[in-house]
Amino acid sequence: MKKLYYGVAYYDEYMPCDRLDEDIRMMKDAGINVVRIAESTWSTMEPRPGYFDYSHIDRVLDAMYKAGIDVIIGTPTYAIPSWLEKMHPEVMADTKQGRRPYGARQIMDITSPAYLFYGERVIRKLMEHVCNHPAVIGYQIDNETKYYGTSGNNVQRMFVRYLRDKFGTTDALNAAFGFDYWSNRVDAWEDVPDVRGTINGSFAAEFEKFQRSLVTDYLSWQASIVREYARPDQFVTHNLDFNWTGYSNGIQSEVDHDRVAECLDIAGCDIYHPTQASLTGIEIAQSGDQTRSLKNAPYLVLETEAQGFPSWTPFPGQLRLQAISHLASGAEMVEYWHWHSIHNSMETYWKGLLSHDFKPSAVYQEAKTVGKEFAKLSGSLTGLHKENKVAILVSNIALTSLKYFPISGGMFGGKLDYNNVVRWMYQTLYHMNVGVDFIYADSLKEGADLSKYSLICIPALYAAPESLLRTLLSYEENGGTLLATFKTAFADENIKVYHDEAPHILSQAFGLSYSQFTVPENVTLDGIGGGEAAINWMELLIPENGTEILSRYDHPYWKAYAAITRTNYGNGHGYYIGCHAGEKVLSALMTEALKTAGVDTPFAGCPVTVRQSVDGEGRKVTFLLNYSMQPVEVTVPASVNLLTDEQYTDGAGVTLPDWGYLIIRE
Amino acid sequence: MKKLYYGVAYYDEYMPCDRLDEDIRMMKDAGINVVRIAESTWSTMEPRPGYFDYSHIDRVLDAMYKAGIDVIIGTPTYAIPSWLEKMHPEVMADTKQGRRPYGARQIMDITSPAYLFYGERVIRKLMEHVCNHPAVIGYQIDNETKYYGTSGNNVQRMFVRYLRDKFGTTDALNAAFGFDYWSNRVDAWEDVPDVRGTINGSFAAEFEKFQRSLVTDYLSWQASIVREYARPDQFVTHNLDFNWTGYSNGIQSEVDHDRVAECLDIAGCDIYHPTQASLTGIEIAQSGDQTRSLKNAPYLVLETEAQGFPSWTPFPGQLRLQAISHLASGAEMVEYWHWHSIHNSMETYWKGLLSHDFKPSAVYQEAKTVGKEFAKLSGSLTGLHKENKVAILVSNIALTSLKYFPISGGMFGGKLDYNNVVRWMYQTLYHMNVGVDFIYADSLKEGADLSKYSLICIPALYAAPESLLRTLLSYEENGGTLLATFKTAFADENIKVYHDEAPHILSQAFGLSYSQFTVPENVTLDGIGGGEAAINWMELLIPENGTEILSRYDHPYWKAYAAITRTNYGNGHGYYIGCHAGEKVLSALMTEALKTAGVDTPFAGCPVTVRQSVDGEGRKVTFLLNYSMQPVEVTVPASVNLLTDEQYTDGAGVTLPDWGYLIIRE
Amino acid sequence: MKKLYYGVAYYDEYMPCDRLDEDIRMMKDAGINVVRIAESTWSTMEPRPGYFDYSHIDRVLDAMYKAGIDVIIGTPTYAIPSWLEKMHPEVMADTKQGRRPYGARQIMDITSPAYLFYGERVIRKLMEHVCNHPAVIGYQIDNETKYYGTSGNNVQRMFVRYLRDKFGTTDALNAAFGFDYWSNRVDAWEDVPDVRGTINGSFAAEFEKFQRSLVTDYLSWQASIVREYARPDQFVTHNLDFNWTGYSNGIQSEVDHDRVAECLDIAGCDIYHPTQASLTGIEIAQSGDQTRSLKNAPYLVLETEAQGFPSWTPFPGQLRLQAISHLASGAEMVEYWHWHSIHNSMETYWKGLLSHDFKPSAVYQEAKTVGKEFAKLSGSLTGLHKENKVAILVSNIALTSLKYFPISGGMFGGKLDYNNVVRWMYQTLYHMNVGVDFIYADSLKEGADLSKYSLICIPALYAAPESLLRTLLSYEENGGTLLATFKTAFADENIKVYHDEAPHILSQAFGLSYSQFTVPENVTLDGIGGGEAAINWMELLIPENGTEILSRYDHPYWKAYAAITRTNYGNGHGYYIGCHAGEKVLSALMTEALKTAGVDTPFAGCPVTVRQSVDGEGRKVTFLLNYSMQPVEVTVPASVNLLTDEQYTDGAGVTLPDWGYLIIRE
Repeated sequence: MKKLYYGVAYYDEYMPCDRLDEDIRMMKDAGINVVRIAESTWSTMEPRPGYFDYSHIDRVLDAMYKAGIDVIIGTPTYAIPSWLEKMHPEVMADTKQGRRPYGARQIMDITSPAYLFYGERVIRKLMEHVCNHPAVIGYQIDNETKYYGTSGNNVQRMFVRYLRDKFGTTDALNAAFGFDYWSNRVDAWEDVPDVRGTINGSFAAEFEKFQRSLVTDYLSWQASIVREYARPDQFVTHNLDFNWTGYSNGIQSEVDHDRVAECLDIAGCDIYHPTQASLTGIEIAQSGDQTRSLKNAPYLVLETEAQGFPSWTPFPGQLRLQAISHLASGAEMVEYWHWHSIHNSMETYWKGLLSHDFKPSAVYQEAKTVGKEFAKLSGSLTGLHKENKVAILVSNIALTSLKYFPISGGMFGGKLDYNNVVRWMYQTLYHMNVGVDFIYADSLKEGADLSKYSLICIPALYAAPESLLRTLLSYEENGGTLLATFKTAFADENIKVYHDEAPHILSQAFGLSYSQFTVPENVTLDGIGGGEAAINWMELLIPENGTEILSRYDHPYWKAYAAITRTNYGNGHGYYIGCHAGEKVLSALMTEALKTAGVDTPFAGCPVTVRQSVDGEGRKVTFLLNYSMQPVEVTVPASVNLLTDEQYTDGAGVTLPDWGYLIIRE
Repeated sequence: MKKLYYGVAYYDEYMPCDRLDEDIRMMKDAGINVVRIAESTWSTMEPRPGYFDYSHIDRVLDAMYKAGIDVIIGTPTYAIPSWLEKMHPEVMADTKQGRRPYGARQIMDITSPAYLFYGERVIRKLMEHVCNHPAVIGYQIDNETKYYGTSGNNVQRMFVRYLRDKFGTTDALNAAFGFDYWSNRVDAWEDVPDVRGTINGSFAAEFEKFQRSLVTDYLSWQASIVREYARPDQFVTHNLDFNWTGYSNGIQSEVDHDRVAECLDIAGCDIYHPTQASLTGIEIAQSGDQTRSLKNAPYLVLETEAQGFPSWTPFPGQLRLQAISHLASGAEMVEYWHWHSIHNSMETYWKGLLSHDFKPSAVYQEAKTVGKEFAKLSGSLTGLHKENKVAILVSNIALTSLKYFPISGGMFGGKLDYNNVVRWMYQTLYHMNVGVDFIYADSLKEGADLSKYSLICIPALYAAPESLLRTLLSYEENGGTLLATFKTAFADENIKVYHDEAPHILSQAFGLSYSQFTVPENVTLDGIGGGEAAINWMELLIPENGTEILSRYDHPYWKAYAAITRTNYGNGHGYYIGCHAGEKVLSALMTEALKTAGVDTPFAGCPVTVRQSVDGEGRKVTFLLNYSMQPVEVTVPASVNLLTDEQYTDGAGVTLPDWGYLIIRE
Repeated sequence: MKKLYYGVAYYDEYMPCDRLDEDIRMMKDAGINVVRIAESTWSTMEPRPGYFDYSHIDRVLDAMYKAGIDVIIGTPTYAIPSWLEKMHPEVMADTKQGRRPYGARQIMDITSPAYLFYGERVIRKLMEHVCNHPAVIGYQIDNETKYYGTSGNNVQRMFVRYLRDKFGTTDALNAAFGFDYWSNRVDAWEDVPDVRGTINGSFAAEFEKFQRSLVTDYLSWQASIVREYARPDQFVTHNLDFNWTGYSNGIQSEVDHDRVAECLDIAGCDIYHPTQASLTGIEIAQSGDQTRSLKNAPYLVLETEAQGFPSWTPFPGQLRLQAISHLASGAEMVEYWHWHSIHNSMETYWKGLLSHDFKPSAVYQEAKTVGKEFAKLSGSLTGLHKENKVAILVSNIALTSLKYFPISGGMFGGKLDYNNVVRWMYQTLYHMNVGVDFIYADSLKEGADLSKYSLICIPALYAAPESLLRTLLSYEENGGTLLATFKTAFADENIKVYHDEAPHILSQAFGLSYSQFTVPENVTLDGIGGGEAAINWMELLIPENGTEILSRYDHPYWKAYAAITRTNYGNGHGYYIGCHAGEKVLSALMTEALKTAGVDTPFAGCPVTVRQSVDGEGRKVTFLLNYSMQPVEVTVPASVNLLTDEQYTDGAGVTLPDWGYLIIRE
């Protein structure tokens, strides 16, 4: 982007009265310079089949252009009009729970020919109509796309063809998935059973992988249609989102972000998170780091909350800190969902920047400050990049495998999921002020050069192909440092457990093996574990000669086994933690690993959150973010305050107010 | 009624042996003078289509008549015979969860022509047969009727017609319900989607309102059939019940009691409640006050528990106190469900007055005392009325709206429902010994004269038409006092949020507005709030000039806002509490409001529960009810003990035993 | 059996590589002398309809025979191939939740003609092929068979015929089930409604009884087919299992074990249980006693865990103690499920004797010790029997009745189920080191001679026919001692509550009656109850003259009633406990009852678990089992240590290590 964008999603369609001029006046006052429109408004744009009404779009585009506000056009396809469902009931996703009823968004079958036919038509009509409008800077294809559980007959027929292409013979399929078990073996492709009833995790997980590929195909198809119309100066993006646990959290299990990113010019996402006393910045940082890593480039926050849920009504100062934190992760656009709080339906209590009364509330007043600061910072905070030495390696194959083979309980449940382990690792590094990239393992080429990272962290890479494991081993052999958790390298990409010692191939990287594991009860960790409890899962590690035991299990019967180890392999180093534990234990281990890996952590002891980028001229830009209810004094190096232009001498003390921030350039 | 009735539901059909004579002997011993029969016995009365067997009815009617026990005939329609379902499977309700299977009661489609055809025939046959029997004093039409989730194609076709009648055009419908959101807009009536899948709360709530109207229609239809046969001296009633949370609780969300009452001669209801250490009298009082208010007249308790659940086995004295408490609310009949405990099926452990062994148990012995006391009190406790100065205004539209827009969490859940807020308010007044009427807002005419009340309490009137809000404003303007809680006057009757300041129209009545709200965390209330915690919900109130702040939020960021306020408007006064809290806070506020409203509370400090009525000669009749396990001494005014005829001088002390009572007339 | 068998389930079909020779080498090393094969491998044996492949079976049979390892052949029918479901979708069970989808095992309709046709063919083909192989010692028909909820149209048509046979007329049916209630009465057999929707517990429970009979029929059918081929020296068994609450627990509610046992030569079962700190031996003992009692003869443990769930990874010593404990209950075979941990699908984390890496782990090493000890003990521990004086009387009719009329809450829930009461009783006796048999009441003939028992314990025999109650009364009259809990003899075998005093008929046996009951709140037990709390349920017992009150309820209102009583009747004695309580209360009561019954309890105070058998020469064989993490010293009588041949003098002290054992013969 050429400047920092501050924006909102705007729905003229949802207004209970004519507000456009007044809204634009208030937007300008608040420094808003971009809006996203049209997304999800199919029934308004095409109220009956083949009849197109562009009036809302036209009047908004013209008014915004006049006001100097740029516009992103969203294709309207993620919510369908009722006439389409009435004509073609089969557009609704046929899922494990049966055909979904019309009503909600995001429950259609994204492979349905009827959906694709009408979807393509409305996209083309829209594009024809808007592509030459001078206000339009880019396009968002669809929104938060998933596969919505689609698994009807058409999808399963495609899936069997996919299996045939992948395995060639049913014998190969039977072997890979262990179909002999419980008499599931098939000797004819037409006997492959409906996957919705299966108890075979390999089969079920492969189907999810196939379903994720449908999302990639679908979005690539939309992108290619949009590109037929888009001007060279207009971008194509998509609003990626993350798993949801009451807020944005971790790897999106229904979409391969790394695959989808290939069809986008610039990555976009939405990030939602708790505020008030629960505002920590972690979700903003982690989701931002995940998104930035997709293209190793600036990205767009296409949606984030202004007020959101009632329980998220921000404390004074929080809206401003949040906006700056997105920039600190590498975003160049921060857009609220949405301008005005909606007066009907599902999201009435997911509030926008304005409340239902449209009056200038406390939150709107704070947005005015943000708008001014974005304008001031625009020159110095665009075109930044990161030079992180630490990466976290993630995988949707591993994530899905742990859904079917959960960490704590085998087939009978488990409470610690893959994203919890990723978060455990991310959060520990976040609290240590260590900058992190994400490596998307599933699209990593064998033998890929990972040497720009000094330390690669591997959370619970339960299922992985040998090619990936060899790549990691070779990274370590060539001098890299690996730090892996329990449940790494246990099964292959078909979730067949490797039948030699665990962890497969990486046994060498970590200098250990194990064949027993259990759920810890009254087990603590000595040594580097500092007496903390092992929780949820523990592997009874047997170190090889030369492997250093950093912690053992303190327990009458398990004390013979190691819990945390370090070894050397080739020119590199391997750290392994065989159990889950609190952040304190991982932090101690991480400190060791960072030291071994030679990663410099200048702001490690700083009492506030610190995030760093590098500008086009190679200068470090440092964001100091006070995520607390108290003022905090920080010590800064020789630098300039990018907001106030104030110059600091090295070691100067600066006090950040509660929820305050400071951006300096060295 | 001409006398107090003490009775039981009697099912000769369910008897494992011939007991009629012995049962009547035991009834007479216990002072029982009325039984309800025939309700729910369709399959016995019409064991095959068109073949009618009145033998059970005849023998019971004759025997009761001979014994001088009056009989209420219940139409048998609320449970259907299996032959009807076998012939016409479509009589089973088609619900959100699909077609209900045959088995339980109350799961038929009350609009099904087959059900109505056979239902009408069995009613007419029954009426022809019994209407001239001298034992019969009245009729109960159906039982605890609801709409049972009926929402099949026939119902939805009717609903679309209803929408067309209401809105005229789809544009008006789209605007009222906000159908543009998530592409739900329709431009043809035939495109209105199946409501069962909707995420639009306006649409869903309107459907529930429509479904409630089906109940009104159905019961009016039954009443009109029964009236073709009923003698002038026979009444028509219905057994209304209340929401259920393990016991009778609050406004019945599936029935508009106020509408249904129009087709009845006298209101009837069932009231169930915990006993033992959990017996408080609140359910008896609240449900009774709700029922009495329907016609501002005495009512019938057609069912209440003798023993009920195993965990409700009454302590000695409780059965007697309960019976008197019903009279204290204005009932003139107390009828147990049921005479004998049933030996098979669903309600084997919902025990009647007799246990399964038919022996005279401790509970039966206590009933004998009650029977004697009813006989003694019959002359002085019939024809009473209430002259309450305080009313609680309730609305099923508001209730339903908060089901779709729950208090604490917007679209994502909420634990405080409408009836909790009603109960909070009712219970506070109950504990202050303040007599209360209920005003049913949904059938209140605009401009209705409410001036007989000095104080109207408004729990969470979330959705309300402007006409109602104007009526309330005008009540206050003319000198009335309003006391409203959070979540009042936020949305219109279509649950579209009003898009000016909240509370809509009543902003003036309370002298405040707000546009922010949240879920309190570590927030206490100063001033009249006495340091108690705000819980579940808080609005950040901004008072106008002249509005008195009775309490503020004690919190680092929210202390700028008011929590509880008082203002004057016209000749009246408005109190508003913007958050939920414990009973103590509401009690303090209520005390203020009662003082302002000039409501006299003579028994406010009395250590037992006090309920008052007025007899036909204008004399106050006061019930003192000791809901505790300890004897309590009370001070009484100059009066006569209606049970013992003892005369008390003013200020006399009387000791009530545990679970004891005293009824005096001044 | 002629020797003690130590074995594993072996699945050549599931192997990721050729392991047979190496596996046999490791088995021999571990003393394994039997394997079970073929069970559940239908799709491998008949990969397409009519094409049979015996290669896995042949190679394993030949190799085992060569190695001197005996083989049990399991018929493969409990999991079906996908081709069968593709050809005949109706083979999947049609249940209350609809037709089950293909995938899991044990979800077919065991009455489906298509299933039976193909099932019979594969059994006959297998039997023809293997019956003459010298390695084969016996057959297991199917596995853990249940009825899998089958309740489709075919099953319900059979059920109506069954009802007609049982009741003769619909009038009799209506009377027995109380169908008049809620208009469920039928006057034509074709009007009997689909049982899946019923709210009538009598009807629902009768259907479950009918469903259990389908299991008996099915297994008898399989047994008769297998017997056409089996050699005289080969046995037919079945792998019975128990209810499941995270582990094997109590009476199997879906199978009448006593009926099924009639078609078996020897009873077999699987027993799974927690280990680590939760290893108590109770599940091994109770399930074993249940199984042994079926034929009053030694039995086979066809499956038990080696490692099982991750949380069950055994502590060192536990595997060995478990194996010996099975022998102590009367087993002559202990077979692990399974040899190797499976690399795919549902039970990947239900680990076998070998882990996924096939390496000799710590658990395998311990199995080698067990194998050696089995070989040593084989001569002295085969052909044992028990001479217990105490029996627990159990009934699936009672169990099912309490499912529909749960103990604590009538129709509205309940947390204490039948098997909890059985376990409460069993566990108390187990902790007192009292040996116990089980009496299966449902197949007990009226007037059966029970005089070999001095004490019969009756847990919650809620529903029972009069014939059974008369048998029990007569047992007491003739000198026996009965000890019954609450909820005994309340309803007949159709779950119609008896309409005279409770407990029906047994009122005399216990010298009491009651007609009130409740859920205790703040109630303690005096006298023998030792101040402990009554929990979950309490009956307000009214003792007759001559009945001794051992404990009363300590409560302001319930103290008038008895809680625990003793009486004499005829030459015998009756103990009754009207409430649930902790083990301490029952233990005190049991001590009294054992004394009265004259049962000798020589090891009652022993600090470890003691189990006794008698060998073919009438000598007592005593197992002392240290279920604890500490060494314990025990005092032994004059005896010989069967493992070490060491001789002990009377009163000698022997120290058992943690999880250690000692077997002595007097």
